[in-house]
Amino acid sequence: MFEQVLAAKKRLNSHANKTPVLTSQTLNTLLGAEVFFKCENFQKIGAFKFRGAFNCISQLSAQEKKRGIIAFSSGNHAQAVALVGNMLGIKTTIVMPNNAPKIKLAATKGYGAKVVIYNTETEIREEVTAAIQQQHGYSLIAPFDNKHVIAGQGTAALELFEKITDLDMLLVPCGGGGLLSGSAISAKSINPNCQVIGIEPEQADDATQSFYSGKLHSIPNPKTIADGTRTTSLGHLTFPLIQKYVDAMKTVSEQAIIEAVKFHMLRMKIVVEPSGALGLAALLSHSVKAQGKIGVIISGGNIDPATLVQILENKI
Amino acid sequence: MFEQVLAAKKRLNSHANKTPVLTSQTLNTLLGAEVFFKCENFQKIGAFKFRGAFNCISQLSAQEKKRGIIAFSSGNHAQAVALVGNMLGIKTTIVMPNNAPKIKLAATKGYGAKVVIYNTETEIREEVTAAIQQQHGYSLIAPFDNKHVIAGQGTAALELFEKITDLDMLLVPCGGGGLLSGSAISAKSINPNCQVIGIEPEQADDATQSFYSGKLHSIPNPKTIADGTRTTSLGHLTFPLIQKYVDAMKTVSEQAIIEAVKFHMLRMKIVVEPSGALGLAALLSHSVKAQGKIGVIISGGNIDPATLVQILENKI
Repeated sequence: MFEQVLAAKKRLNSHANKTPVLTSQTLNTLLGAEVFFKCENFQKIGAFKFRGAFNCISQLSAQEKKRGIIAFSSGNHAQAVALVGNMLGIKTTIVMPNNAPKIKLAATKGYGAKVVIYNTETEIREEVTAAIQQQHGYSLIAPFDNKHVIAGQGTAALELFEKITDLDMLLVPCGGGGLLSGSAISAKSINPNCQVIGIEPEQADDATQSFYSGKLHSIPNPKTIADGTRTTSLGHLTFPLIQKYVDAMKTVSEQAIIEAVKFHMLRMKIVVEPSGALGLAALLSHSVKAQGKIGVIISGGNIDPATLVQILENKI
Repeated sequence: MFEQVLAAKKRLNSHANKTPVLTSQTLNTLLGAEVFFKCENFQKIGAFKFRGAFNCISQLSAQEKKRGIIAFSSGNHAQAVALVGNMLGIKTTIVMPNNAPKIKLAATKGYGAKVVIYNTETEIREEVTAAIQQQHGYSLIAPFDNKHVIAGQGTAALELFEKITDLDMLLVPCGGGGLLSGSAISAKSINPNCQVIGIEPEQADDATQSFYSGKLHSIPNPKTIADGTRTTSLGHLTFPLIQKYVDAMKTVSEQAIIEAVKFHMLRMKIVVEPSGALGLAALLSHSVKAQGKIGVIISGGNIDPATLVQILENKI
């Protein structure tokens, strides 16, 4: 699989942002360790999802590209597919729920995608999507359970290891597992001694349960502020990859996530969405014991102003 | 003077953060130009002030270091001097007003400095400072009107030019003029064709008035959200340097500053204090016409959570 990450890196070369790696002296002193943050909040569309979407969509055949692409998502994947479709001149349809935040709806439309709204109470998004897909022959771009998407997501950790090779530990947020499995493939291929740990909210610990039980576990509608981890379960591709390449899964409380978002903002001066702050949350709450050189993937920075205000005012 | 900036760079080499240069595709598309942000909000203590303070204090004689240092400031300079004093094992006293924000008071004490509070209604800070200075033989570390401080501040622009040499324009916030004069020295020495433009709030346009009239102009207690530019006037060293090396001065409205802070936060995912957002404010409000390759120095990111909330809720 690592060859596919290396190939993805070449494909992304002049298209994705080479996001910076930031450190915080205050944090290092506090933890007695060295932490290196790979800042995918500075990636195109504000999240790592651009990497997987570009790597996947750019490999479609000329005919598939001509027919068009479709995705269902209310979050960062929607914006990533919409932007890549726009960049490559591909007709793009995004299926979004009628309760999607207006800001994300506007952003997706802003990239030139056609948005189809479905009613969450009377329709099932997979059925709505399948009907449109069949009618037009569109290619479905899956948010995480696709080998090209996984390989694309693995390029963020690859870039981090190119800067800091001797990481003792790598912390990665886990939703559907695309970022975690891709990162773990890169980590174990470059430095097999690096411990790869997936981080989930306590309230959305389906992957942790799956990892330790060996059986794919689902949690419908998990209640967590970390909206990027509200996927109900790992995928059929990501689950075995995580079993193979990941060393441990850890969980963090909602309060720990909020504290981490605040630390990122007020101490490190970067805006990080709750899902993106899971790694720091694990360190600050001692869910993961800090030691040596620690890499942390910040998955994204797309947070609503209203949520930011609630966090700053301690109202959550 | 440029030799002094180069010497400062060597001194700062293993002490200051090499802050990243960030870009925004959204902004570039909006402006039809290429903008490169030098992010001093990621500098130690969250602002460029660390550079000048370190370059100045590290050059004191052994005896001066033994006696101790003193500074008066309610802002980033106080924290910078306190941190450098701590790093170099020098006894440090900071004179702060009784109305200084608690968060800055705590930060300054946190770096191990002794804080002396003066009453803004009954005492004059220069007199309070001079009395302590004379009693103990402390060296006064001036916030901007000191050649070593100016040379240190010039290293941020130097690092930017090392990455992007062919900038057509460089936008720099202006308070007391330390950052602006230092940046202009670097810019004109590396690329004389680069237009250097200082940016001030309309409400604190003393440097703009001085620049265009040729006479040092003062504004007591300027009312602007950009607290880093509330200095009453340029200094006796910075004013002639700005006359010599700077091409133009431009001003921006309070509303433009607020919009720029929001754009930095919600689009670029970085936390920037109002003074640090002056460059982007000038571009977004067309006070400076965007063209070609534009460098922007973001001076710092130290903003109170309460002010952030007010900006996000459009209450200012």
